[in-house]
Amino acid sequence: MSGLKFRNNHIVATYECDKTSNMTLPSLINNMVETSGLQSHALGNTEEQMSERGLAWIIIQYDIKINRMPTRREEITLETEALSYNRFFTYRAFRAFDQADNLLVEVITTFGVMEMTTRKLTQVSKELIAPYQAEEIRTMLRAPKIKPVNKETATSMPFRVRYLDIDGNMHVNNAKYFDWIINTIDTDILENYLIEAVTIKYEKEVGFGNMIESTVSVEQLADNKVMTAHVIENGGGNACIANITWVKR
Amino acid sequence: MSGLKFRNNHIVATYECDKTSNMTLPSLINNMVETSGLQSHALGNTEEQMSERGLAWIIIQYDIKINRMPTRREEITLETEALSYNRFFTYRAFRAFDQADNLLVEVITTFGVMEMTTRKLTQVSKELIAPYQAEEIRTMLRAPKIKPVNKETATSMPFRVRYLDIDGNMHVNNAKYFDWIINTIDTDILENYLIEAVTIKYEKEVGFGNMIESTVSVEQLADNKVMTAHVIENGGGNACIANITWVKR
Repeated sequence: MSGLKFRNNHIVATYECDKTSNMTLPSLINNMVETSGLQSHALGNTEEQMSERGLAWIIIQYDIKINRMPTRREEITLETEALSYNRFFTYRAFRAFDQADNLLVEVITTFGVMEMTTRKLTQVSKELIAPYQAEEIRTMLRAPKIKPVNKETATSMPFRVRYLDIDGNMHVNNAKYFDWIINTIDTDILENYLIEAVTIKYEKEVGFGNMIESTVSVEQLADNKVMTAHVIENGGGNACIANITWVKR
Repeated sequence: MSGLKFRNNHIVATYECDKTSNMTLPSLINNMVETSGLQSHALGNTEEQMSERGLAWIIIQYDIKINRMPTRREEITLETEALSYNRFFTYRAFRAFDQADNLLVEVITTFGVMEMTTRKLTQVSKELIAPYQAEEIRTMLRAPKIKPVNKETATSMPFRVRYLDIDGNMHVNNAKYFDWIINTIDTDILENYLIEAVTIKYEKEVGFGNMIESTVSVEQLADNKVMTAHVIENGGGNACIANITWVKR
């Protein structure tokens, strides 16, 4: 189960880090997704060609495992690999390595193809996927279950969608959701814990001017860990659900 | 009037662009300021050494002239040059060039040195500035006047400072102010005009959890241009003032 790989080096910039000099999750995800854009570009399958066909790649789900977050000024290697695809989804790995080739972060990603006019998912055509040499599969990849927020203990915060949150697909960029998620979490967790794992599922796109509600609940786990459960609601419906596992620093 | 230069290449990433595939102002500024961090690092004057002395470089003012914004996937060269310094300020240029070496953007920046415990400006020591070989001057560089907002026609929007807005200096990163500024401007201007010039002055730092008010007024100029005047207020006082000149696309 593996297709073409593509690698790209990156030096973590100051502005990509939080106040503890660790790279932020949205910055890491942005850089990872960019490697798949660069791979597509190198294979002659550009975003411009996608738009000409009226199509866009969109992110459906990330499953993220973090051994260690990259830090400021660290040189990392970002790798992407087209894994497999079925009628509706393509699966792709993103990995970050340090200079000794230790795996820092691995992200298994589910992509779909959206029709720009209807804003609906469409089938993944063989012509579109061929250049990546991924394996065709008939099944769906089993994804980790996402626990719902505990409504009895949950807290919420509203966020207004800003002009600069909107990307070339004319909706909120997937990495912005992490901003809405992280910024609802108590600073005690943000300052004293590190992210170990994230599962996030995008259910509905969010547009300019929308007012979303980001809700979080916290559950204590064994071994000095906590789990935060998240839901982002937009006009009554769920736009996104997520779980994050945190381990004490 | 010129000291050491430092150059760095950058390929504009998708996530650094707005929905029209032009690089956003905060992304450009972030990348420019990073080149001065890399220069300092190369000269052995790291952020870590600054913190050990209890000091931090902070941005006081940007004067930005834009011939053309870089676009998605464009390879640009970012240049920084230590210009001159006086007792309290250092002046530094940032420039972006395209691959034919055309000047795309030039930014003249005023830096100060902040004492981390008192959060106050302190004198620029010769020891600190020596590695950059900038010229010592006795005067202040003349800065463009910033027109105040027209309170009779102004509109405002509140923004809550988020955890990820805070940088290693434990205050809101200077580029975040552009987010607050741009996101108050009418979409008619954002979509139909391009930024030609910006002058922005940082007057007071903003901390985590603060609720700021971003106010804008619009003035029609000749030649299909408009000027937006901005003030960011925090707890009654001004945190930042700015003027942006826009030209019709």
